[in-house]
Amino acid sequence: MEKLLVIKIGGNIIDDDSKLASFLLSFSLMKEKKILVHGGGKMATALAEKMGIQQKLVDGRRITDAETLKIVTMVYAGYINKNIVAMLQAHHCNAIGLCGADGDAILAHKRKHPVLDYGFVGDVDAINSSLLKNLLDQHIAIVFAPITHDQQGQLLNTNADTIAQELAKGMSGLFDVSLIYSFEKSGVLLDAADDSSVIPEITAAYYQQLKARQKIFAGMIPKLDNAFTALNSGVKKVMIGKAEELVELVNGKTGTSIINE
Amino acid sequence: MEKLLVIKIGGNIIDDDSKLASFLLSFSLMKEKKILVHGGGKMATALAEKMGIQQKLVDGRRITDAETLKIVTMVYAGYINKNIVAMLQAHHCNAIGLCGADGDAILAHKRKHPVLDYGFVGDVDAINSSLLKNLLDQHIAIVFAPITHDQQGQLLNTNADTIAQELAKGMSGLFDVSLIYSFEKSGVLLDAADDSSVIPEITAAYYQQLKARQKIFAGMIPKLDNAFTALNSGVKKVMIGKAEELVELVNGKTGTSIINE
Repeated sequence: MEKLLVIKIGGNIIDDDSKLASFLLSFSLMKEKKILVHGGGKMATALAEKMGIQQKLVDGRRITDAETLKIVTMVYAGYINKNIVAMLQAHHCNAIGLCGADGDAILAHKRKHPVLDYGFVGDVDAINSSLLKNLLDQHIAIVFAPITHDQQGQLLNTNADTIAQELAKGMSGLFDVSLIYSFEKSGVLLDAADDSSVIPEITAAYYQQLKARQKIFAGMIPKLDNAFTALNSGVKKVMIGKAEELVELVNGKTGTSIINE
Repeated sequence: MEKLLVIKIGGNIIDDDSKLASFLLSFSLMKEKKILVHGGGKMATALAEKMGIQQKLVDGRRITDAETLKIVTMVYAGYINKNIVAMLQAHHCNAIGLCGADGDAILAHKRKHPVLDYGFVGDVDAINSSLLKNLLDQHIAIVFAPITHDQQGQLLNTNADTIAQELAKGMSGLFDVSLIYSFEKSGVLLDAADDSSVIPEITAAYYQQLKARQKIFAGMIPKLDNAFTALNSGVKKVMIGKAEELVELVNGKTGTSIINE
């Protein structure tokens, strides 16, 4: 099967113009078929503050009320998504920016939770793999903003790491998929304060040990859970590492490889 | 050749939730292949005010400085575009929301003017008709926000009426194109204050007469100029009329027909 890269770019890179520019240049040079998923960065929070809208976070997840949904739709699907696409076009990488409502690309439902109302937060049900394959076959890179829809007219805010994992899983029947989580760190670290303490390889068993020894930084746990879910569902390869070393990361020469054995 | 509808929806309809909902229901029911172009409405201005950004208009055109470009990208390509797409999906009309940077759909250049600097305003150079045909052939309706790009990484604010005209022209080699300007009025009016004074048909010669007699409302002139440009470039039919009567308007049973003879 042909290769497909599904690459998630973290919020801290989005916030740094020169890091983002250099990442997008590397991305544009990759020969493989490719999907980029971006998160939000600080711009949504800054805009909400400017507009006097209070932000609520519970367990690291944003509670998305109607006003917050409006802001993330504007910032993620509008400003960030379209600027990334324009920058890729400048590198002669033909790209198209989508949210989950576009072409019914990512169908989701509003999260149900016994106690907590997350607001307009979506959990993914399905990926429209034939639409995405058709675009990829036209040599178009796809850039996803982390917004989905419920087929009933409602947009939903959805975690970008999860979207990347769902896209990787959903496309694994059609392509040999590598899922790459790229961000500001060099990989999964044994010591969160020491960027040289990268763990080169994490198996499922080793992950359980590291968690039991509380050696995994809390923010990394959803990423690793997503990584193993992807590997259990047909994704060939998962890598976690530095956005500034994208080429080496994709080739497995840097960062952390997640291995299901 | 197969029929294609290029429909522009005016800002006053975008601002009115119930009119917009009823328009989108009608749009979703049209059997023809279709492209929708939307303008902005009052939301961009309201957001700019909230953020303390001064708006400048010269000759009815917004001067787009960097901050204003940010706002229109967020509001037009983000909030409005994605909500329209989600609402169409709810009516089981598969739709995809694009700006001109997406798939290099609409290439433009920053306007050059001997005296006035319009800022980040784009004049259209080219339409990527093969991309659009491919999407239309998958039975996907295309929803355009009035933002273009210059292939050098710069997004540009572009008049939505002009985008509709350029799309209609650009697709006229592949389809039998009808261009429809739909808005809050019943058509081109002989008396701007009387919505029943619709002129049913305007030829090029009659348009010159009406203009000489100052019978054309100033805001209508760019629309009519766009209409004749389209007819001179292969577009089969141009209609101007009420968004709430979309079906009748498309069928030529209401509104103003623009005729090139």
